Amino acid sequence: MEREVSELADKKVAVIMGSDSDLPVVKGAIDTLKGLGIGVEVHVMSAHRTPALACEFAASARDHGFAAIIAAAGKAAHLAGVLAAHTTLPVIGIPVKSSTLDGLDALLATVQMPSGIPVATVAIDGAQNAAILAAQIIGVTDAEVAYKLSVRKEEMKQGVIEKDRKLQEQLG
Amino acid sequence: MEREVSELADKKVAVIMGSDSDLPVVKGAIDTLKGLGIGVEVHVMSAHRTPALACEFAASARDHGFAAIIAAAGKAAHLAGVLAAHTTLPVIGIPVKSSTLDGLDALLATVQMPSGIPVATVAIDGAQNAAILAAQIIGVTDAEVAYKLSVRKEEMKQGVIEKDRKLQEQLG
Amino acid sequence: MEREVSELADKKVAVIMGSDSDLPVVKGAIDTLKGLGIGVEVHVMSAHRTPALACEFAASARDHGFAAIIAAAGKAAHLAGVLAAHTTLPVIGIPVKSSTLDGLDALLATVQMPSGIPVATVAIDGAQNAAILAAQIIGVTDAEVAYKLSVRKEEMKQGVIEKDRKLQEQLG
Amino acid sequence: MEREVSELADKKVAVIMGSDSDLPVVKGAIDTLKGLGIGVEVHVMSAHRTPALACEFAASARDHGFAAIIAAAGKAAHLAGVLAAHTTLPVIGIPVKSSTLDGLDALLATVQMPSGIPVATVAIDGAQNAAILAAQIIGVTDAEVAYKLSVRKEEMKQGVIEKDRKLQEQLG
Amino acid sequence: MEREVSELADKKVAVIMGSDSDLPVVKGAIDTLKGLGIGVEVHVMSAHRTPALACEFAASARDHGFAAIIAAAGKAAHLAGVLAAHTTLPVIGIPVKSSTLDGLDALLATVQMPSGIPVATVAIDGAQNAAILAAQIIGVTDAEVAYKLSVRKEEMKQGVIEKDRKLQEQLG
Amino acid sequence: MEREVSELADKKVAVIMGSDSDLPVVKGAIDTLKGLGIGVEVHVMSAHRTPALACEFAASARDHGFAAIIAAAGKAAHLAGVLAAHTTLPVIGIPVKSSTLDGLDALLATVQMPSGIPVATVAIDGAQNAAILAAQIIGVTDAEVAYKLSVRKEEMKQGVIEKDRKLQEQLG
Amino acid sequence: MEREVSELADKKVAVIMGSDSDLPVVKGAIDTLKGLGIGVEVHVMSAHRTPALACEFAASARDHGFAAIIAAAGKAAHLAGVLAAHTTLPVIGIPVKSSTLDGLDALLATVQMPSGIPVATVAIDGAQNAAILAAQIIGVTDAEVAYKLSVRKEEMKQGVIEKDRKLQEQLG
Amino acid sequence: MEREVSELADKKVAVIMGSDSDLPVVKGAIDTLKGLGIGVEVHVMSAHRTPALACEFAASARDHGFAAIIAAAGKAAHLAGVLAAHTTLPVIGIPVKSSTLDGLDALLATVQMPSGIPVATVAIDGAQNAAILAAQIIGVTDAEVAYKLSVRKEEMKQGVIEKDRKLQEQLG
Repeated sequence: MEREVSELADKKVAVIMGSDSDLPVVKGAIDTLKGLGIGVEVHVMSAHRTPALACEFAASARDHGFAAIIAAAGKAAHLAGVLAAHTTLPVIGIPVKSSTLDGLDALLATVQMPSGIPVATVAIDGAQNAAILAAQIIGVTDAEVAYKLSVRKEEMKQGVIEKDRKLQEQLG
Repeated sequence: MEREVSELADKKVAVIMGSDSDLPVVKGAIDTLKGLGIGVEVHVMSAHRTPALACEFAASARDHGFAAIIAAAGKAAHLAGVLAAHTTLPVIGIPVKSSTLDGLDALLATVQMPSGIPVATVAIDGAQNAAILAAQIIGVTDAEVAYKLSVRKEEMKQGVIEKDRKLQEQLG
Repeated sequence: MEREVSELADKKVAVIMGSDSDLPVVKGAIDTLKGLGIGVEVHVMSAHRTPALACEFAASARDHGFAAIIAAAGKAAHLAGVLAAHTTLPVIGIPVKSSTLDGLDALLATVQMPSGIPVATVAIDGAQNAAILAAQIIGVTDAEVAYKLSVRKEEMKQGVIEKDRKLQEQLG
Repeated sequence: MEREVSELADKKVAVIMGSDSDLPVVKGAIDTLKGLGIGVEVHVMSAHRTPALACEFAASARDHGFAAIIAAAGKAAHLAGVLAAHTTLPVIGIPVKSSTLDGLDALLATVQMPSGIPVATVAIDGAQNAAILAAQIIGVTDAEVAYKLSVRKEEMKQGVIEKDRKLQEQLG
Repeated sequence: MEREVSELADKKVAVIMGSDSDLPVVKGAIDTLKGLGIGVEVHVMSAHRTPALACEFAASARDHGFAAIIAAAGKAAHLAGVLAAHTTLPVIGIPVKSSTLDGLDALLATVQMPSGIPVATVAIDGAQNAAILAAQIIGVTDAEVAYKLSVRKEEMKQGVIEKDRKLQEQLG
Repeated sequence: MEREVSELADKKVAVIMGSDSDLPVVKGAIDTLKGLGIGVEVHVMSAHRTPALACEFAASARDHGFAAIIAAAGKAAHLAGVLAAHTTLPVIGIPVKSSTLDGLDALLATVQMPSGIPVATVAIDGAQNAAILAAQIIGVTDAEVAYKLSVRKEEMKQGVIEKDRKLQEQLG
Repeated sequence: MEREVSELADKKVAVIMGSDSDLPVVKGAIDTLKGLGIGVEVHVMSAHRTPALACEFAASARDHGFAAIIAAAGKAAHLAGVLAAHTTLPVIGIPVKSSTLDGLDALLATVQMPSGIPVATVAIDGAQNAAILAAQIIGVTDAEVAYKLSVRKEEMKQGVIEKDRKLQEQLG
Repeated sequence: MEREVSELADKKVAVIMGSDSDLPVVKGAIDTLKGLGIGVEVHVMSAHRTPALACEFAASARDHGFAAIIAAAGKAAHLAGVLAAHTTLPVIGIPVKSSTLDGLDALLATVQMPSGIPVATVAIDGAQNAAILAAQIIGVTDAEVAYKLSVRKEEMKQGVIEKDRKLQEQLG
């Protein structure tokens, strides 16, 4: 997964988690974004405990040079939706498993948004994919990021091929 | 269900719906509150479309003489939680069936609140019970409302007994 | 979380659990109520094993100075509903995860109450929120409790802000 | 389904429904019991609206000559469990679909009973099977009822064989 | 749980498990039946691996003096239904959690029986209740067993009262 | 969907439904098999009402020239599993939506088979796919059937392309 | 909802549906994109019936000037994932309710993507939000589209305020 | 489970897993196929990371002498469906539990295939049954494999009978 990052993307990505207990999940997003040379700003902000801060952050995110906001929250996960209410930037929601319900509560509370306010939802605990999606959004107009994504896609492919080769040795 | 309302309770209840399409569900709450002699103020406010208005309403609800806020919303139902974030009054959530998922999404998005910000959740589309719960909250200190609730409870009991009597005639 | 409790609220709260195995969950409610200076009475009572005791307790709870009853039960959780059938006080239900089904059975058996008998349901294993909701109910008319809740809300906010500050140090 | 009923069983069965709106579902149980020559007593009784009546009925059911109690209820279906708490007779629960949740709430609230208080649960809206199960219970010691059940089983078998024969004609 | 068993019930109960891996669950049923002085015969029989043996067992169970058959199985739990197809005795199904799905598959495969062939279903892994239900069935006509069940009910009640008393000491 | 069927496949397929009410669903399988030139034998047989007939049919199916058995059933759908217990032929299960639970009960009761007795499960109400799967099984060694399946696959492809072409006209 | 579209966005959006029966759902996305002045290309393409066409379309979408691909599919909805496998553009998935399962199957099959290949999932049947999300992605760098989105957000807000005003008249 | 394999079946089976982390699950299928004397070819191939390789493999599988393809994948499990899109051979899907959702996501994403492209789905993590199903497919025309399957069925039966015998000793 070693790669040289020649230059930073013009746009950066915000990664917001509803609780610092979500950091182990969210870490996958931070590392992936950094690995793709994309600037990251990480915050703990709560839709319910610091709603004003969350709203202000979202409302000013475009002016602060963010291309997208990633929001990770569990249970009745309102964070992504509350952020999305205050910006026209794409908001990416990571439903986090943090209750007894295997993350289904967070998934439904994140994805089933009413018309007008979408949240781009990824898999439960799917932090890495949230980062890749943010990079894809930047990559729509940023050729460098798009190129890195295609390199990464090729690496994934070669990784699977290599695993298959090893499996043949192991089973052969 | 006819009853004379001798005097209005001191406290009133706010009934907030996320969309005016929720009015048919919410009507049950309004009628029940009025039937119990409790003042009602009804609003359409959206956690995602008019978040600032919703937050301001909740933040000033205590000063405006409300005892409780009833919030009805469907799908990824954030309304009750967003209101609860801005008040220390009890917030009662009615999960509304308004997606293909039978209201399970709204139920989980309403009830599975993180620690610190409770939403008193009633059954899916359970508007009448939301109103009774609000009345019970007022009735903790308002003897008139408490009395009306006990009358109502007795009427329900007599209603069941009467239905059983009719059933005996019908089947006998 | 240290705080001085200058005076006890006028009203107390009952915390009923269906089985003493629910105590670890219910403890969060007891501690939170005590922390807010609210009197607590705790009982093991079963909707199915000691139904008469449970009914009598609920029927006389108002006369004994309770403002609300918190009931915690798992599986086919009937306890909150059975108590609610015998009082016009607000009954708060905590669905407890105690079967193989992640608490979904207890949630549905607690929240899906028929018209006329509401149970104010909180999240699965959400004992702390049950206590805060009870405090909010008392706080409708008790300014001291309401003030403590607003202090607590502010502390939660500062807690999140502090966690965000530490995160910046950690990641910076 | 015509059959002559030569003599009534010694034991009768109580059929209790939580609401008279459950009668269309429950009717299948009443008709099946009558068809098997078993005495039936039918009541509307509510675990939440007339709890005392329900408890008294269950507590005295054995002395009144009942062999089993069938209880039909929807949503947070507590009726069967509440009856079972007051008797050592078998209580058969019919979960009724009466909310938006397809009867899953009633099924879990009926079947997931805590240790010590079983409810013999049949399928959602499975009134006919509740009746057959009650008859099977009587048939453990009542040879006449057991015989009628075996006749009925044979008739079901012949019914399927006849349907298969007609299908061959239809498709042939 | 010590009790003297003065005389054996006239009828015995069969406990069938689909796999010997279900024994830890089923043990609760065996012990409870023995504790109530009811004869038990235990077998491993599979609806899919030894279907003929299972069918023959069920078909002859009445003649062999059984009052009821308890069947425990997991996943696509067909065992109880297959047994029920071959007898007019009451068949009690215990859905066993033995897949990744928390026992929901076994519950639905056991309880959702088609009209004509009921299975008296208890909670997931609810072996003790299956035994009590079988005892209740015998107790319909066996006064000794009925008496033991009422003693047991009283013991459960006293057990809860004792636990409440200890809780008061512990919390006081 | 007109096609000439030049010659019948060597092997035929049995289509068994648990109830004649399943015929509208099952019809899709019958028509598809006939359209592919595969012989079909259709029966109503019940795992619970005519278990002996079902077992005998399955046990002798190979000798009667069947390549596969398609079984359609709803609710606690045991039919496919019971048939599979009596044959080493592939048994294809169609879970039928016939309860309030949207077919989820039938799906789990069909697919979650214990080790040793597989049922090849298709989508809820997926009769056409059951037929295609049976044809694929025959087509493993029957080149004519395999060829027809590839023609059909090509027709499906052309159908989608044609629909896309029409959509362009419609939207253009 | 009338608005003048002064100039088309530089980037266009592809809307792909798995079956032409999805058109009524997908129409909401097409209309919304056109209303925002964004070019749309609409296709019927199937992950299973025309996989090669779908893959080719996705692989060349960037070169053809698309900023994002919206994919709508029901049941085991593989379309969005298959497209995402062949492009580094953002792929937005609309789970369509088209089976008996209320769209839950399509939601899980769309959102639970493995690491490396995200699909930005919106609500079940949430076509309008898919379009807004695509517009938000374009709006990251296209100020005209971003402006239109903020106008639209303001209109939504005014719409809710107007509905609240009407409600006051209606209830007043 | 020792058995002599006198001769290899004419047809072999492909076992494809979406990730090498699925190998512990898939191993049960490989061992079972080898135990039945059926040739196996095992690969890691991903519907999303190496889609072209997966499609080519499926498209040429018939020519390479495969009778069936077993595909194991978790989460939004598209692998079996993507393979099935490219072949007219039977494709057997094993939904693998690899997310927080207990495998329900993989089950629905595997089994709910659209009309025209069946996937023969077995239980979650049901690798052994996938292998037996593949063997049953070969056994339709391969008498040797069919014979081995019937021997295995008899062994399973004797295994259950032996376990019952041991249980009698243990409990006796």
